[in-house]
Amino acid sequence: MSKDSNTAKASLEVLVIGLGLIGASVAKGLRQRAVARISGFDTQPATLRKACELGIIDSAAADLGSALTTADVVMLAVPVLAMEALFEDIRKHAAADCIITDVGSVKCSTIDAAVRVFGRVPARLVPGHPIAGSENSGVAAADAMLFERHKVILTPQDHTDGEALQLVARLWRELGAEVVEMDAAQHDEVLAATSHLPHMLAYALVDTLVSMEQKQKIFDFAAGGFRDFSRIASSDPRMWHDIVLANKVSVLAAIDVFDAHLAGLRRAIETEDSQALMETLSRAKTARDEFVEKS
Amino acid sequence: MSKDSNTAKASLEVLVIGLGLIGASVAKGLRQRAVARISGFDTQPATLRKACELGIIDSAAADLGSALTTADVVMLAVPVLAMEALFEDIRKHAAADCIITDVGSVKCSTIDAAVRVFGRVPARLVPGHPIAGSENSGVAAADAMLFERHKVILTPQDHTDGEALQLVARLWRELGAEVVEMDAAQHDEVLAATSHLPHMLAYALVDTLVSMEQKQKIFDFAAGGFRDFSRIASSDPRMWHDIVLANKVSVLAAIDVFDAHLAGLRRAIETEDSQALMETLSRAKTARDEFVEKS
Repeated sequence: MSKDSNTAKASLEVLVIGLGLIGASVAKGLRQRAVARISGFDTQPATLRKACELGIIDSAAADLGSALTTADVVMLAVPVLAMEALFEDIRKHAAADCIITDVGSVKCSTIDAAVRVFGRVPARLVPGHPIAGSENSGVAAADAMLFERHKVILTPQDHTDGEALQLVARLWRELGAEVVEMDAAQHDEVLAATSHLPHMLAYALVDTLVSMEQKQKIFDFAAGGFRDFSRIASSDPRMWHDIVLANKVSVLAAIDVFDAHLAGLRRAIETEDSQALMETLSRAKTARDEFVEKS
Repeated sequence: MSKDSNTAKASLEVLVIGLGLIGASVAKGLRQRAVARISGFDTQPATLRKACELGIIDSAAADLGSALTTADVVMLAVPVLAMEALFEDIRKHAAADCIITDVGSVKCSTIDAAVRVFGRVPARLVPGHPIAGSENSGVAAADAMLFERHKVILTPQDHTDGEALQLVARLWRELGAEVVEMDAAQHDEVLAATSHLPHMLAYALVDTLVSMEQKQKIFDFAAGGFRDFSRIASSDPRMWHDIVLANKVSVLAAIDVFDAHLAGLRRAIETEDSQALMETLSRAKTARDEFVEKS
């Protein structure tokens, strides 16, 4: 595969597997910017058809095996527990120098799945994770600008092929993203706290309110705070089912740390410990305000 | 006090005590719409000065006692645990037919405080709570449109004076709000679930992240989900300190119900109970989507 010249760009063939919000947004963005020729695959024929109709991909792969044989880059944009089966397809059909990358929210599980299939982490596997999304899901929500000014974390290993890493980084930069590298285990721990935990809290909160006797009144009088807080509970259940199972250890640890903090807050309320309560609320407000100022 | 004609409107004197976001927004909105003459009081001289400079109030009450003697309506827009001391001032200085209302997020505690001060709930006390707000606080954030198309809950008692109730309802309607009546105890239970609990979760989440070793990386990679989820943790700590102490029983109960649901979700993750996990996430997503569609 050649690189860098415009001709080379146009001749690059990227196969995006999974045309949900993220996969379809990558496909649409790369295609609009003429970075590569985009073929797409999805297990749902209706999704694949829609992606063609909307001009998100150049071609729909009727057969995954044949599409894999001609791809220069394969991007896996499927729920994280679906990665392993696709690695099998890649092992069987893809060219030996085909670059493999993914967009999963958990990185160690993808790397472990690759080891199970390939016997080791392939040098041409560049695990990745764009820190971008929306509670909207599906091909129709595709947004070519979704990654603009968003971070994308790549978690290469020591033996990851340098050219593969550079190419994947370049694709994300073409989409307007800021690429950073991180250790896979650290990624999973950090994301458990910043993303997986908040999602579980939002799901648990909505599920709590649904269970209450006053359910109707509760939803009638829920205000903007609830709307914002619960937005992420409208995310795709299948995706989140996979994420928390794939990142089980870190997610459970994050839930436990949260639980201890909530118990502390509960205790301060129960014992009317005014000082402890003010300290906790003030510390959280200060941290949150600083976060917003910086971001 | 006369009502309904424009002359009557202009001659109505409303004293707003506490010029934070809500008090100042009420003052600004009523003044802009020429519904009443607005005097304001705040324990912070700088706030009072700012409210004058910004044209939010017609006059600043240097002395609360004298301002109370001429007010037709007193609106208490202070942290809920500060209500009782102000009821004392009202008892000492206000006219016998002066209408008293408040904007506190807890209603039973305000009613109980009134009983302690007046010996019974005054017929001219109309407890109220606008379901509107912002993580911004303070007089500078005053917004005359803050209550447009928002609900305001009034919690009158059986013996509440009908004219007082009508007048307070009219003031809110002039501000564009939809006025609904509810039992005070039910209000406190519903709001514990829809508002007080989410606020405690947001504070506890941010406090959890701050406590983590990876704190810096965590805030660097926090995404939009965290931003939305934690927005309410930027709310005023004093206000929330008072709310959860004033509504202690309902807030503790809501935390406990939430805790049980989070524990269920945690168990499903730990035991990799795929079906239970999918059921919970899907149920929450469906409920949240329905809420957004209807609101």
